[in-house]
Amino acid sequence: MSNNSVTPHISKAFDKDLENIRTRVLEMGGLVEQQLLNALKSLVDSDLELAEGVLETEYRINSMEVSIDEDCTKILARRQPAAGDLRLVLAVSKTITDLERVGDEAQKIAKMAIDLSQKQGPKSYYIGINSMGNHVCKMLRGALDAFARMDSRAALEVAGREPESDDQYAALLRQMITYMIEDPRSITSVIDAIWCARSLERVGDHARNICEYVIYFVEGKDVRHISLEEMAREVNSDSKS
Amino acid sequence: MSNNSVTPHISKAFDKDLENIRTRVLEMGGLVEQQLLNALKSLVDSDLELAEGVLETEYRINSMEVSIDEDCTKILARRQPAAGDLRLVLAVSKTITDLERVGDEAQKIAKMAIDLSQKQGPKSYYIGINSMGNHVCKMLRGALDAFARMDSRAALEVAGREPESDDQYAALLRQMITYMIEDPRSITSVIDAIWCARSLERVGDHARNICEYVIYFVEGKDVRHISLEEMAREVNSDSKS
Repeated sequence: MSNNSVTPHISKAFDKDLENIRTRVLEMGGLVEQQLLNALKSLVDSDLELAEGVLETEYRINSMEVSIDEDCTKILARRQPAAGDLRLVLAVSKTITDLERVGDEAQKIAKMAIDLSQKQGPKSYYIGINSMGNHVCKMLRGALDAFARMDSRAALEVAGREPESDDQYAALLRQMITYMIEDPRSITSVIDAIWCARSLERVGDHARNICEYVIYFVEGKDVRHISLEEMAREVNSDSKS
Repeated sequence: MSNNSVTPHISKAFDKDLENIRTRVLEMGGLVEQQLLNALKSLVDSDLELAEGVLETEYRINSMEVSIDEDCTKILARRQPAAGDLRLVLAVSKTITDLERVGDEAQKIAKMAIDLSQKQGPKSYYIGINSMGNHVCKMLRGALDAFARMDSRAALEVAGREPESDDQYAALLRQMITYMIEDPRSITSVIDAIWCARSLERVGDHARNICEYVIYFVEGKDVRHISLEEMAREVNSDSKS
Protein backbone atom coordinates (compact mmCIF):
# COMPACT_ATOMS: atom_id res chain seq x y z
CA MET A 1 0.00 0.00 0.00
CA SER A 2 1.45 3.31 -1.00
CA ASN A 3 0.09 6.78 -0.99
CA ASN A 4 3.05 8.23 -2.77
CA SER A 5 1.58 8.78 -6.22
CA VAL A 6 1.64 12.36 -7.44
CA THR A 7 -1.66 14.01 -6.63
CA PRO A 8 -2.80 16.55 -9.22
CA HIS A 9 -3.44 19.89 -7.55
CA ILE A 10 -7.11 20.57 -7.06
CA SER A 11 -6.70 24.30 -6.87
CA LYS A 12 -4.51 27.00 -8.33
CA ALA A 13 -4.36 28.32 -4.79
CA PHE A 14 -2.31 25.29 -3.77
CA ASP A 15 0.25 26.00 -6.51
CA LYS A 16 0.35 29.57 -5.33
CA ASP A 17 0.92 28.46 -1.72
CA LEU A 18 3.85 26.29 -2.73
CA GLU A 19 5.34 28.97 -4.97
CA ASN A 20 4.94 31.45 -2.14
CA ILE A 21 6.96 29.50 0.44
CA ARG A 22 9.72 28.89 -2.13
CA THR A 23 9.91 32.60 -2.92
CA ARG A 24 9.97 33.49 0.76
CA VAL A 25 12.82 31.06 1.48
CA LEU A 26 14.86 32.77 -1.23
CA GLU A 27 14.00 36.16 0.23
CA MET A 28 15.10 34.97 3.68
CA GLY A 29 18.23 33.43 2.12
CA GLY A 30 19.09 36.74 0.47
CA LEU A 31 18.81 38.56 3.77
CA VAL A 32 20.88 35.95 5.61
CA GLU A 33 23.57 36.10 2.93
CA GLN A 34 23.69 39.89 3.22
CA GLN A 35 23.96 39.65 7.00
CA LEU A 36 26.86 37.24 6.70
CA LEU A 37 28.69 39.42 4.16
CA ASN A 38 28.16 42.50 6.32
CA ALA A 39 29.34 40.71 9.46
CA LEU A 40 32.49 39.56 7.70
CA LYS A 41 33.16 43.02 6.29
CA SER A 42 32.54 44.65 9.68
CA LEU A 43 35.13 42.30 11.20
CA VAL A 44 37.80 42.73 8.55
CA ASP A 45 37.36 46.52 8.26
CA SER A 46 36.64 47.09 12.00
CA ASP A 47 33.44 48.79 10.85
CA LEU A 48 31.38 49.23 14.03
CA GLU A 49 28.38 50.79 12.32
CA LEU A 50 28.05 47.86 9.94
CA ALA A 51 28.35 45.41 12.85
CA GLU A 52 25.60 47.23 14.77
CA GLY A 53 23.44 47.05 11.64
CA VAL A 54 23.82 43.25 11.58
CA LEU A 55 22.71 43.01 15.22
CA GLU A 56 19.71 45.25 14.58
CA THR A 57 18.55 43.24 11.56
CA GLU A 58 18.80 39.82 13.23
CA TYR A 59 15.19 39.89 14.51
CA ARG A 60 13.91 40.02 10.90
CA ILE A 61 15.49 36.66 10.15
CA ASN A 62 13.97 35.12 13.27
CA SER A 63 10.50 36.38 12.41
CA MET A 64 10.86 35.16 8.81
CA GLU A 65 11.68 31.68 10.14
CA VAL A 66 8.61 31.61 12.37
CA SER A 67 6.34 33.00 9.68
CA ILE A 68 7.48 30.65 6.88
CA ASP A 69 7.21 27.69 9.26
CA GLU A 70 3.65 28.76 10.02
CA ASP A 71 2.89 28.80 6.29
CA CYS A 72 4.34 25.29 5.96
CA THR A 73 2.11 24.05 8.78
CA LYS A 74 -0.94 25.64 7.18
CA ILE A 75 -0.17 23.97 3.84
CA LEU A 76 0.24 20.60 5.58
CA ALA A 77 -3.07 21.03 7.43
CA ARG A 78 -5.16 22.44 4.59
CA ARG A 79 -3.69 20.97 1.41
CA GLN A 80 -2.46 17.63 2.72
CA PRO A 81 0.33 17.45 0.15
CA ALA A 82 1.77 14.14 -1.04
CA ALA A 83 4.93 13.00 -2.82
CA GLY A 84 6.96 15.88 -4.28
CA ASP A 85 4.73 18.57 -2.79
CA LEU A 86 5.16 17.10 0.67
CA ARG A 87 8.92 16.84 0.17
CA LEU A 88 9.00 20.49 -0.88
CA VAL A 89 7.24 21.62 2.29
CA LEU A 90 9.52 19.50 4.47
CA ALA A 91 12.64 20.70 2.63
CA VAL A 92 11.51 24.31 3.12
CA SER A 93 10.86 23.76 6.81
CA LYS A 94 14.35 22.33 7.33
CA THR A 95 16.09 24.88 5.09
CA ILE A 96 14.78 27.84 7.09
CA THR A 97 16.09 26.30 10.32
CA ASP A 98 19.58 26.20 8.81
CA LEU A 99 19.22 29.71 7.39
CA GLU A 100 18.24 31.02 10.80
CA ARG A 101 21.34 29.39 12.32
CA VAL A 102 23.51 31.07 9.67
CA GLY A 103 21.89 34.33 10.78
CA ASP A 104 22.93 33.46 14.36
CA GLU A 105 26.51 32.90 13.24
CA ALA A 106 26.50 36.26 11.42
CA GLN A 107 25.29 37.85 14.65
CA LYS A 108 28.09 36.20 16.63
CA ILE A 109 30.69 37.43 14.11
CA ALA A 110 29.28 40.98 14.30
CA LYS A 111 29.50 40.86 18.12
CA MET A 112 33.10 39.70 17.91
CA ALA A 113 33.83 42.49 15.39
CA ILE A 114 32.63 45.01 17.99
CA ASP A 115 34.61 43.29 20.73
CA LEU A 116 37.79 43.00 18.64
CA SER A 117 37.73 46.61 17.49
CA GLN A 118 38.38 47.56 21.13
CA LYS A 119 41.26 45.13 21.62
CA GLN A 120 44.91 45.22 20.66
CA GLY A 121 46.22 42.23 18.78
CA PRO A 122 47.62 40.95 15.50
CA LYS A 123 45.32 41.45 12.52
CA SER A 124 47.31 39.49 9.98
CA TYR A 125 45.17 36.35 10.33
CA TYR A 126 42.22 38.46 9.10
CA ILE A 127 43.39 37.61 5.58
CA GLY A 128 42.76 33.94 6.32
CA ILE A 129 39.40 34.66 7.98
CA ASN A 130 38.36 36.81 5.02
CA SER A 131 39.35 34.14 2.53
CA MET A 132 37.51 31.42 4.48
CA GLY A 133 34.54 33.79 4.85
CA ASN A 134 34.40 34.34 1.10
CA HIS A 135 34.53 30.60 0.51
CA VAL A 136 31.57 29.83 2.80
CA CYS A 137 29.59 32.86 1.54
CA LYS A 138 29.96 31.43 -1.98
CA MET A 139 28.86 28.01 -0.69
CA LEU A 140 25.76 29.58 0.86
CA ARG A 141 25.00 31.48 -2.36
CA GLY A 142 25.51 28.25 -4.34
CA ALA A 143 23.17 26.34 -2.01
CA LEU A 144 20.49 29.02 -2.40
CA ASP A 145 20.91 29.00 -6.20
CA ALA A 146 20.54 25.20 -6.22
CA PHE A 147 17.41 25.64 -4.09
CA ALA A 148 16.01 28.31 -6.44
CA ARG A 149 16.44 26.03 -9.45
CA MET A 150 15.83 22.84 -7.47
CA ASP A 151 18.93 21.46 -9.13
CA SER A 152 20.33 18.38 -7.37
CA ARG A 153 23.56 18.31 -9.40
CA ALA A 154 24.34 21.89 -8.49
CA ALA A 155 23.55 21.02 -4.86
CA LEU A 156 25.96 18.07 -5.03
CA GLU A 157 28.67 20.32 -6.43
CA VAL A 158 28.24 22.87 -3.62
CA ALA A 159 28.18 20.17 -0.92
CA GLY A 160 31.46 18.93 -2.37
CA ARG A 161 33.12 22.21 -1.43
CA GLU A 162 32.63 21.65 2.30
CA PRO A 163 35.88 19.72 2.89
CA GLU A 164 37.78 22.76 1.59
CA SER A 165 36.20 24.99 4.23
CA ASP A 166 37.12 22.39 6.89
CA ASP A 167 40.73 22.46 5.67
CA GLN A 168 40.80 26.24 5.69
CA TYR A 169 39.44 26.22 9.22
CA ALA A 170 42.06 23.73 10.44
CA ALA A 171 44.86 25.79 8.88
CA LEU A 172 43.52 29.02 10.39
CA LEU A 173 43.24 27.41 13.80
CA ARG A 174 46.86 26.24 13.69
CA GLN A 175 47.95 29.73 12.64
CA MET A 176 46.03 31.39 15.45
CA ILE A 177 47.31 28.98 18.08
CA THR A 178 50.85 29.81 16.92
CA TYR A 179 50.10 33.51 17.41
CA MET A 180 48.93 32.91 20.94
CA ILE A 181 52.00 30.87 21.82
CA GLU A 182 54.33 33.50 20.36
CA ASP A 183 52.54 36.41 21.99
CA PRO A 184 50.44 35.42 25.01
CA ARG A 185 49.24 39.02 25.36
CA SER A 186 47.23 38.44 22.19
CA ILE A 187 45.32 35.48 23.67
CA THR A 188 42.02 37.21 24.44
CA SER A 189 41.76 38.81 21.02
CA VAL A 190 42.87 35.67 19.16
CA ILE A 191 40.24 33.64 21.03
CA ASP A 192 37.58 36.02 19.65
CA ALA A 193 38.98 35.56 16.15
CA ILE A 194 38.89 31.77 16.66
CA TRP A 195 35.15 32.02 17.41
CA CYS A 196 34.70 33.84 14.10
CA ALA A 197 36.54 31.11 12.22
CA ARG A 198 34.42 28.50 14.02
CA SER A 199 31.25 30.38 13.05
CA LEU A 200 32.32 30.41 9.40
CA GLU A 201 33.02 26.68 9.54
CA ARG A 202 29.47 26.18 10.85
CA VAL A 203 28.11 28.25 7.93
CA GLY A 204 29.78 25.77 5.57
CA ASP A 205 27.97 22.94 7.40
CA HIS A 206 24.62 24.71 7.09
CA ALA A 207 25.16 25.35 3.36
CA ARG A 208 25.83 21.63 2.92
CA ASN A 209 22.66 20.79 4.88
CA ILE A 210 20.62 23.00 2.52
CA CYS A 211 22.15 21.15 -0.45
CA GLU A 212 21.07 17.87 1.14
CA TYR A 213 17.47 19.09 1.39
CA VAL A 214 17.52 20.10 -2.30
CA ILE A 215 18.71 16.59 -3.20
CA TYR A 216 16.03 15.13 -0.93
CA PHE A 217 13.35 17.15 -2.71
CA VAL A 218 14.55 16.43 -6.25
CA GLU A 219 15.66 12.81 -5.88
CA GLY A 220 13.36 11.73 -3.06
CA LYS A 221 16.36 10.36 -1.18
CA ASP A 222 17.58 11.28 2.28
CA VAL A 223 21.33 11.88 1.80
CA ARG A 224 22.21 13.03 5.33
CA HIS A 225 25.04 11.28 7.16
CA ILE A 226 26.54 9.74 4.06
CA SER A 227 29.84 10.48 2.31
CA LEU A 228 30.12 12.81 -0.67
CA GLU A 229 30.91 9.78 -2.86
CA GLU A 230 27.70 8.01 -1.81
CA MET A 231 25.79 11.27 -2.31
CA ALA A 232 27.15 11.55 -5.86
CA ARG A 233 26.06 7.97 -6.57
CA GLU A 234 22.53 8.74 -5.35
CA VAL A 235 22.25 11.84 -7.53
CA ASN A 236 23.76 10.21 -10.61
CA SER A 237 21.93 6.87 -10.32
CA ASP A 238 18.57 8.59 -10.25
CA SER A 239 19.16 10.45 -13.50
CA LYS A 240 19.76 7.14 -15.28
CA SER A 241 16.54 5.46 -14.15
CA MET B 1 -11.76 29.41 6.66
CA SER B 2 -9.92 27.08 8.94
CA ASN B 3 -9.05 23.45 8.77
CA ASN B 4 -7.73 23.28 12.27
CA SER B 5 -10.51 21.41 14.02
CA VAL B 6 -9.49 18.20 15.70
CA THR B 7 -10.08 15.28 13.38
CA PRO B 8 -11.16 12.09 15.11
CA HIS B 9 -8.81 9.25 14.18
CA ILE B 10 -10.31 6.96 11.63
CA SER B 11 -8.11 4.04 12.50
CA LYS B 12 -6.40 2.57 15.50
CA ALA B 13 -3.40 2.23 13.19
CA PHE B 14 -3.06 6.02 13.15
CA ASP B 15 -2.94 6.15 16.97
CA LYS B 16 -0.36 3.41 16.86
CA ASP B 17 1.74 5.34 14.31
CA LEU B 18 1.75 8.44 16.51
CA GLU B 19 2.53 6.46 19.64
CA ASN B 20 5.31 4.73 17.77
CA ILE B 21 7.18 7.91 16.76
CA ARG B 22 6.88 9.27 20.30
CA THR B 23 8.35 6.09 21.74
CA ARG B 24 11.17 6.10 19.21
CA VAL B 25 12.09 9.71 20.01
CA LEU B 26 12.41 8.74 23.66
CA GLU B 27 14.52 5.75 22.71
CA MET B 28 16.77 7.99 20.59
CA GLY B 29 16.86 10.53 23.43
CA GLY B 30 17.96 7.83 25.88
CA LEU B 31 20.81 6.81 23.61
CA VAL B 32 21.90 10.42 23.03
CA GLU B 33 21.86 11.09 26.78
CA GLN B 34 23.99 8.02 27.39
CA GLN B 35 26.45 9.11 24.69
CA LEU B 36 26.76 12.53 26.30
CA LEU B 37 27.30 11.08 29.78
CA ASN B 38 29.91 8.66 28.44
CA ALA B 39 31.71 11.39 26.50
CA LEU B 40 31.87 13.57 29.60
CA LYS B 41 33.09 10.70 31.76
CA SER B 42 35.70 9.72 29.17
CA LEU B 43 37.02 13.28 29.23
CA VAL B 44 37.12 13.71 32.98
CA ASP B 45 38.56 10.24 33.67
CA SER B 46 40.80 10.17 30.55
CA ASP B 47 39.04 6.89 29.70
CA LEU B 48 40.08 6.15 26.10
CA GLU B 49 37.99 3.00 25.78
CA LEU B 50 34.83 4.82 26.77
CA ALA B 51 35.64 7.62 24.29
CA GLU B 52 36.15 5.10 21.47
CA GLY B 53 32.81 3.55 22.38
CA VAL B 54 31.08 6.92 21.92
CA LEU B 55 32.62 7.31 18.45
CA GLU B 56 31.57 3.80 17.46
CA THR B 57 27.97 4.31 18.58
CA GLU B 58 27.46 7.66 16.80
CA TYR B 59 26.18 6.04 13.58
CA ARG B 60 23.22 4.57 15.47
CA ILE B 61 21.97 8.06 16.38
CA ASN B 62 22.29 9.22 12.77
CA SER B 63 20.33 6.27 11.44
CA MET B 64 17.65 6.74 14.12
CA GLU B 65 17.23 10.35 12.96
CA VAL B 66 16.81 9.33 9.33
CA SER B 67 14.46 6.48 10.15
CA ILE B 68 12.19 8.47 12.51
CA ASP B 69 12.05 11.32 9.98
CA GLU B 70 10.96 8.79 7.36
CA ASP B 71 8.16 7.63 9.66
CA CYS B 72 7.07 11.26 10.13
CA THR B 73 6.93 11.76 6.36
CA LYS B 74 4.90 8.56 5.93
CA ILE B 75 2.40 9.70 8.58
CA LEU B 76 2.07 13.10 6.87
CA ALA B 77 1.51 11.45 3.47
CA ARG B 78 -0.84 8.64 4.54
CA ARG B 79 -2.71 9.99 7.56
CA GLN B 80 -2.83 13.68 6.69
CA PRO B 81 -2.88 14.71 10.34
CA ALA B 82 -4.44 17.99 11.48
CA ALA B 83 -4.28 20.16 14.60
CA GLY B 84 -2.58 18.47 17.57
CA ASP B 85 -1.63 15.38 15.57
CA LEU B 86 0.11 17.52 12.97
CA ARG B 87 1.87 19.51 15.68
CA LEU B 88 3.07 16.26 17.24
CA VAL B 89 4.61 15.05 13.98
CA LEU B 90 6.29 18.43 13.38
CA ALA B 91 7.56 18.60 16.98
CA VAL B 92 9.00 15.09 16.62
CA SER B 93 10.69 15.97 13.35
CA LYS B 94 12.37 19.01 14.89
CA THR B 95 13.24 17.27 18.17
CA ILE B 96 15.21 14.52 16.44
CA THR B 97 17.28 17.12 14.57
CA ASP B 98 18.31 18.64 17.89
CA LEU B 99 18.95 15.22 19.42
CA GLU B 100 21.19 14.31 16.51
CA ARG B 101 23.17 17.53 17.04
CA VAL B 102 23.61 16.65 20.73
CA GLY B 103 24.99 13.33 19.51
CA ASP B 104 27.44 15.29 17.33
CA GLU B 105 28.56 17.33 20.34
CA ALA B 106 29.07 14.12 22.36
CA GLN B 107 31.19 12.82 19.50
CA LYS B 108 33.29 16.01 19.50
CA ILE B 109 33.83 15.75 23.26
CA ALA B 110 34.90 12.11 22.92
CA LYS B 111 37.39 13.08 20.20
CA MET B 112 38.81 15.81 22.44
CA ALA B 113 39.02 13.31 25.31
CA ILE B 114 41.23 11.12 23.13
CA ASP B 115 43.28 14.11 22.01
CA LEU B 116 43.67 15.51 25.53
CA SER B 117 44.71 12.20 27.06
CA GLN B 118 47.87 12.48 24.96
CA LYS B 119 48.67 16.06 25.95
CA GLN B 120 50.21 17.62 29.01
CA GLY B 121 48.28 20.42 30.63
CA PRO B 122 46.40 21.54 33.71
CA LYS B 123 43.42 19.37 34.57
CA SER B 124 41.99 21.51 37.34
CA TYR B 125 39.38 23.13 35.09
CA TYR B 126 37.94 19.64 34.54
CA ILE B 127 35.95 20.23 37.74
CA GLY B 128 34.22 23.15 36.03
CA ILE B 129 33.65 21.21 32.81
CA ASN B 130 32.24 18.28 34.77
CA SER B 131 29.91 20.53 36.73
CA MET B 132 28.71 22.30 33.58
CA GLY B 133 28.38 18.90 31.88
CA ASN B 134 26.18 17.59 34.68
CA HIS B 135 24.03 20.70 34.46
CA VAL B 136 23.35 20.34 30.72
CA CYS B 137 22.89 16.54 31.00
CA LYS B 138 20.16 17.23 33.56
CA MET B 139 18.64 19.82 31.24
CA LEU B 140 18.58 17.25 28.41
CA ARG B 141 17.03 14.64 30.71
CA GLY B 142 14.46 17.22 31.85
CA ALA B 143 13.62 18.15 28.26
CA LEU B 144 13.12 14.46 27.37
CA ASP B 145 10.95 13.94 30.47
CA ALA B 146 8.83 16.95 29.49
CA PHE B 147 8.55 15.45 26.01
CA ALA B 148 7.57 12.03 27.40
CA ARG B 149 4.77 13.58 29.46
CA MET B 150 4.08 16.37 26.94
CA ASP B 151 4.16 18.73 29.91
CA SER B 152 4.57 22.38 28.87
CA ARG B 153 5.12 23.63 32.42
CA ALA B 154 7.96 21.18 32.95
CA ALA B 155 9.37 22.26 29.57
CA LEU B 156 9.21 25.89 30.65
CA GLU B 157 11.03 25.08 33.87
CA VAL B 158 13.84 23.26 32.00
CA ALA B 159 14.18 26.06 29.40
CA GLY B 160 14.58 28.46 32.34
CA ARG B 161 17.78 26.70 33.34
CA GLU B 162 19.58 27.67 30.14
CA PRO B 163 20.93 31.03 31.39
CA GLU B 164 22.71 29.15 34.18
CA SER B 165 24.59 27.03 31.63
CA ASP B 166 25.52 30.19 29.72
CA ASP B 167 26.90 31.70 32.95
CA GLN B 168 28.85 28.54 33.75
CA TYR B 169 30.28 28.60 30.25
CA ALA B 170 31.34 32.24 30.49
CA ALA B 171 33.03 31.60 33.86
CA LEU B 172 34.82 28.51 32.53
CA LEU B 173 36.02 30.41 29.49
CA ARG B 174 37.48 33.17 31.65
CA GLN B 175 39.20 30.58 33.82
CA MET B 176 40.68 28.78 30.83
CA ILE B 177 41.92 31.99 29.21
CA THR B 178 43.67 32.84 32.47
CA TYR B 179 45.39 29.43 32.40
CA MET B 180 46.65 30.06 28.90
CA ILE B 181 47.99 33.50 29.79
CA GLU B 182 49.75 32.15 32.89
CA ASP B 183 51.16 29.13 31.11
CA PRO B 184 51.38 29.53 27.31
CA ARG B 185 52.68 25.93 27.02
CA SER B 186 49.19 24.78 28.01
CA ILE B 187 47.54 26.62 25.09
CA THR B 188 46.94 23.66 22.75
CA SER B 189 45.42 21.49 25.47
CA VAL B 190 43.32 24.32 26.92
CA ILE B 191 41.95 25.10 23.43
CA ASP B 192 40.70 21.49 23.25
CA ALA B 193 39.08 21.88 26.65
CA ILE B 194 37.45 25.13 25.46
CA TRP B 195 35.85 23.20 22.57
CA CYS B 196 34.40 20.78 25.10
CA ALA B 197 32.91 23.63 27.14
CA ARG B 198 31.51 25.13 23.94
CA SER B 199 29.96 21.78 23.00
CA LEU B 200 28.30 21.55 26.40
CA GLU B 201 26.93 25.06 26.02
CA ARG B 202 25.42 23.98 22.67
CA VAL B 203 23.80 20.99 24.39
CA GLY B 204 22.03 23.43 26.72
CA ASP B 205 20.72 25.29 23.64
CA HIS B 206 19.45 22.06 22.08
CA ALA B 207 17.71 21.05 25.32
CA ARG B 208 15.97 24.43 25.34
CA ASN B 209 14.93 23.94 21.71
CA ILE B 210 13.33 20.60 22.60
CA CYS B 211 11.43 22.32 25.41
CA GLU B 212 10.17 24.89 22.89
CA TYR B 213 8.81 22.11 20.65
CA VAL B 214 7.00 20.55 23.63
CA ILE B 215 5.38 23.92 24.37
CA TYR B 216 4.52 24.28 20.67
CA PHE B 217 2.81 20.88 20.71
CA VAL B 218 0.91 21.37 23.97
CA GLU B 219 -0.01 25.05 23.68
CA GLY B 220 -0.10 25.40 19.89
CA LYS B 221 2.18 28.42 20.14
CA ASP B 222 5.56 28.95 18.53
CA VAL B 223 7.76 30.20 21.38
CA ARG B 224 11.09 30.38 19.53
CA HIS B 225 13.04 33.62 19.63
CA ILE B 226 11.18 35.05 22.60
CA SER B 227 12.39 35.71 26.13
CA LEU B 228 11.82 33.29 29.00
CA GLU B 229 9.37 35.80 30.52
CA GLU B 230 7.28 35.89 27.37
CA MET B 231 7.45 32.12 27.17
CA ALA B 232 6.15 31.84 30.74
CA ARG B 233 3.25 34.17 29.86
CA GLU B 234 2.35 32.01 26.85
CA VAL B 235 2.35 28.81 28.92
CA ASN B 236 0.46 30.33 31.85
CA SER B 237 -2.10 32.28 29.82
CA ASP B 238 -3.16 29.20 27.97
CA SER B 239 -3.99 27.28 31.12
CA LYS B 240 -6.40 30.02 32.16
CA SER B 241 -8.37 30.07 28.91
